[in-house]
Parts: sequence; structure tokens; C-alpha cells
Amino acid sequence: MILKAYVHGGDVYKHRVTLDYSANVNPFGTPEPVKAAICAAAEDVSRYPDPYCTALREKLAAKTGVLPDEILCGNGAAELIFSFVQAVKPKTALLPVPSFAEYETALRTAGVEPVFDPLSGDSGFVLSDRILDSITPETDVLLLCSPNNPTGRSIEKELLLKILDRCRETGTWLFLDECFQDLTDADKTFSLIGSLRDGDRALILKAFTKTYGMAGVRLGYAISKNSDLLCNMSEAVQPWNVSTLAQSAGFAALDCPDWAQKARELFRTEKAYLIKELSALGVSVLYGDANFLLLSGVPTLYERLLERGILVRDCANFRGLEKGDVRIAVRTHAENTALIAAITEALHA
Amino acid sequence: MILKAYVHGGDVYKHRVTLDYSANVNPFGTPEPVKAAICAAAEDVSRYPDPYCTALREKLAAKTGVLPDEILCGNGAAELIFSFVQAVKPKTALLPVPSFAEYETALRTAGVEPVFDPLSGDSGFVLSDRILDSITPETDVLLLCSPNNPTGRSIEKELLLKILDRCRETGTWLFLDECFQDLTDADKTFSLIGSLRDGDRALILKAFTKTYGMAGVRLGYAISKNSDLLCNMSEAVQPWNVSTLAQSAGFAALDCPDWAQKARELFRTEKAYLIKELSALGVSVLYGDANFLLLSGVPTLYERLLERGILVRDCANFRGLEKGDVRIAVRTHAENTALIAAITEALHA
Repeated sequence: MILKAYVHGGDVYKHRVTLDYSANVNPFGTPEPVKAAICAAAEDVSRYPDPYCTALREKLAAKTGVLPDEILCGNGAAELIFSFVQAVKPKTALLPVPSFAEYETALRTAGVEPVFDPLSGDSGFVLSDRILDSITPETDVLLLCSPNNPTGRSIEKELLLKILDRCRETGTWLFLDECFQDLTDADKTFSLIGSLRDGDRALILKAFTKTYGMAGVRLGYAISKNSDLLCNMSEAVQPWNVSTLAQSAGFAALDCPDWAQKARELFRTEKAYLIKELSALGVSVLYGDANFLLLSGVPTLYERLLERGILVRDCANFRGLEKGDVRIAVRTHAENTALIAAITEALHA
Repeated sequence: MILKAYVHGGDVYKHRVTLDYSANVNPFGTPEPVKAAICAAAEDVSRYPDPYCTALREKLAAKTGVLPDEILCGNGAAELIFSFVQAVKPKTALLPVPSFAEYETALRTAGVEPVFDPLSGDSGFVLSDRILDSITPETDVLLLCSPNNPTGRSIEKELLLKILDRCRETGTWLFLDECFQDLTDADKTFSLIGSLRDGDRALILKAFTKTYGMAGVRLGYAISKNSDLLCNMSEAVQPWNVSTLAQSAGFAALDCPDWAQKARELFRTEKAYLIKELSALGVSVLYGDANFLLLSGVPTLYERLLERGILVRDCANFRGLEKGDVRIAVRTHAENTALIAAITEALHA
């Protein structure tokens, strides 16, 4: 294989997998109205997509309380990470780790060697206000994820506001990935969107992928009150980056507000169930605010589960994590029961 | 609108358009099996796409006579233009004009000011062997399109082979866009794919967009026998750039080989019809080998047709063209008759 080695979760294509616990999508899958919208849009795909995603951005604006011109849609949130880096052209970047690997990949593609700020496993990988001292006028970009992937840790509201203020002082671009927030515990869903001021060097990343089970569609969006940034980002991508199918799917998804709520209710009971069962089995579990949990302490857990047709996310290639650290999605009770049974069997094999 | 101004054909969203002659897609639209494949794939979009597009690349390889690893798929051919430039990182680029605007945009996004090689309107914008002298060891990249957009002119086989040889001598990367070739006159469909040698610094660009009426889906592919290039291009884009919907649509399209053939047969008679009628009206027509024609000589033709609900491609913003140069797609006889009626009316208004 000459192509780039693939290191993410969700690659169920090269394995024989009966249960995918490696991708953090809504366990209820895709809402029927979204599937229906894709089918309907298939009738109209000989036309080019609306390059401005006008209807979708207007609906998103109404939902998020910003202006349509403060939103840019992308071919998945991942594309927006790359176009953000291309638009800002940072020389230096501060990146707390472990975190989602694509931030580093996007930086390296643009020739930037990030400065890593290791989060301490001993304190549960929580971002502390120590980060404030690391943000200096020499820091071109700070990349954060809340809740963070793969730890599930949210950044506290007070700290996040201090970080935003500090970035204003230093002229640092703040990139904040809130992709998992729609599937996060209600008391941890503080979003920075409402705190942005006109011209702020800040971008909030959001996705349909996880919330609406649309990983195969590719649709994300960025919110910023810095119009130069969004203009430069739109120039860094090709003109029809968001397909008609994705625009229609996203438009329909916004009419399904209960979809995330239903999943959050499930996670409340299922996270408690998984933590209890895993702890009883002697597996360490890091409490996560989002729809996934980070396990540790069993070096061969990934392989032993794969033998049983269950794919989890091997986190050994995350900076600051090690062999035996694996991320599991939280899914339906029937699936979680099967997972626990498989882990029990794997540990005793 | 803060986003990048949109300068291409096919933007039927901001105009009241009853007939779109600005986008060069197959006039028969999208094959039913492709629409059905999109609907079927909608059931499975909560999973991430196959990041390697394995099934699609294998089928494409069988069709094009190359190896699967010599193919890279993209979110539309346009994405591959950008990732090619990002992967090669040229310092200099030679670009005959007029040609498709995204080549220049992709180069400028990467900080490259292209050297333009103006094609002469007096000789019908045909690429001549004068280009061979312009390719020097200082030329990092040469970007060509055959048939060229918006002129419809193909590059002669003998010249193309000489260009490939010349690029081998000078170490120049050859980027050749063959996106319109499937809808081109049979005697003008020479592809360079079969002439590539292992390691050649060359890339051929192909798309499903035009051939299979899939502009709203976004799917293109690149063929190269330079494995470093494809590897670097795959690193320059996000890991799931091609949606499950696009992969399924493309897979189904490859089972519709008659779709392009049927359109080519239509073009043979309809291009003759349009040229005859337009010439009788005193409109200059450049003969094009592909599914579109370049008209000239009526400065306000674009506006007069838009008033009548017909969108054509105003080519005034192409380098080397001027106000009054417009590109029209070739469509079905009923539509072409309506177009001629509207042009007749517009000219006499």
C-alpha cells in the first residue's frame, strides 16, 4: 500500500469486525429523515452543489445564534482543520497532548513542528491553568479539543474564558474543536461560541459526523467572528468541497434535535454500567464527559478483542499514551453487554 | 458575502435559471443505478468511509489498465488539483491560458505565481509545439488540460508524447487534466495513461462529474506511476476525503459504460446543429472536441440570455479571453433548440 497509513478508529474495512467500538458515533446511527434526504438529493446530483452552502448555513446560523457569514462548511470537520492551518500559516503551534492526531498532521503538512504540552496522566489528562503561561506572543496558534479525544475530558468554562482572553492579549489564534460536545454530559457542554467577539482570532469546529451518525457523509462546519479567516479558509479549498448530498443531509439533520438528546440519555446509564463492569474486571477507566471512555492497563486488550471480532481504538500511537491504552465508544446496552462479555472472556483467555 | 467569490459555471443557486448551459455535464444526467447506489449507501453512513477507497480503486484499475496503487481518489477532481500542488510544492509553474481557473487558484494558494503561456486565439487556441521550448529545467510543473476548458481543444497525440519526453528530460512535473475526455469526439480521445512509465513525474486527472452527471456527488481520481507523488498527495488531504456515498456512486457508475457513449453520439449531431444555427445567426463558434463550445463576438450575450432564464458561462474572467466570450454546454436537441430560439430573440431584442 503506497498510500498514507491509516491510524484512526472506524476502519472496519480491513478487519473482520462484528462490533465497532473504535468510532465515536451516535449509537442510534443515522436519523431516517437524513437517509431520506440523501435519497431525495440523489435525484439532483447532475448539478453542481451550491458552493456557498447557503441554505445549510442559514439554518445552522439560526440554530447556533451566529450569522450565516460566520459559518464555513467543510467536507467533514477534518477538512476544516487542514484549511484552518493553511489559512493562518502559523510558524509556531502549541498543542496539548494526547489529542486528535489530525491537528499534528495538518500542522506538519504545512511545515510546522508543533510544541507539545503534555497533559499529565496522573491528573487524568485534565487541562490545567498552567497552559496560560505557555501561551506567549510567540505562540501563533493554540489547538484545543473539548471534550478532548481520546481522553473525553472537557475544559472548564472559567479556564476556557481565561484562555480566550490570554489569546487576545498575545495575538494567538485559538482553534477549539467542539465536535463531541453534542454528545457530552449536560453539565459539561459549555461552548465558547457565545463568548466570541467580532474579529477574535478564534475558530470553533463542529461536526455532524458523531451527533447524527453521518461519518460516511462528511460534513463539518467552523464558526468564527473573524471574517478574514473564513475568507482565507474558503480560498484554501476547492470551490465545491461540500457535496449536494452532504448539504441536504445536514439540512435534514438539523430538524432532528432529539437525536443527540436521546443518545445523551443513553450514555448516562451506559457509561455508569461500563465503568462499573470494567472496574470489577480490574480494567482502569478514565471518566470521560463525551461518548467514549479511555481504558488502560491491559497491554494486549486491542488484539484480544480483535480476535473476537470487536474493534476498539488502539491508542498506542497517541502522543503521551502507551500500549494498552484503548478507547471504546459507548453504545447501546445490548452491544455494551456483548463488549463486557468479550472483555471478560479475553481477560481470562 | 465574506466567502470567496465564485467564478465558475453551474451556479444555478443565485440566479433564476430554467436552462443551465454553464456546466459541462452529461445532458442525460445521472444514471439510475448511480442514484440507486447512493440511496442504498445512505443506509450505511453512520460508519466512516473506507479511507483507501479500496473497492472503487480496484474497479477503476481494471477499467483503466493501471494498478490500484497507481490511483488516488479525491473529493472531486478539484481537490486533487490542490493536493497535487501541495504535494509537489513547485517554485515555478508553466500554464498555457486560457484554461480552467482552479489550476491558477491552487498554485496561488501555495504561493506560486504561474508563468502564463498564452494560446493564440487567431490559431484557435491550439497548443503548438512552441510549448516544448518553454519547458526548461527551471520549470517545476507544467499544467495542461485536454480537451482544454473552455476552448474544447485537444492536444495532438504526437505533441503530447513529445511533451512527456521533454518533461522527462527537464525533470518537470506534468499535470494533465483529462476530465472531459470521456465526452469527447472519438478521434480525439488519446489518453496519456498508457504512455506513462514507472516513476514518471506525471499525473493524469479524471472525474466522474461530467461523464456520469455526478457534479453534486464530488468524485475524481488521479492516475500516476510515481508512488511518492500519490503518497504525498494522500498526506496533504484529510483521511476520509471521499464519502461513502461518493465511493458507492462511482462504483455503480463504472457499470454504466454506455452512458458516455450515448452522450458522445448525441454530441456528434448536436454540435453540428448548434454550429450551423449559431453561424447563421452571425455568432462565432470555436469548434470544440468536447461537450461544450466557445462562442464569441456578442458582448452582452451572457446578460441577454440570463434575462431569458438561460445561464451560460461568461468567460470574461478567463485569462486571454474577453467580454462576449461565452461557453455553452451541448445538451439534448430539445434544449439546444430552446437555446437557439433564445439567442435568436436576444440578438434581435
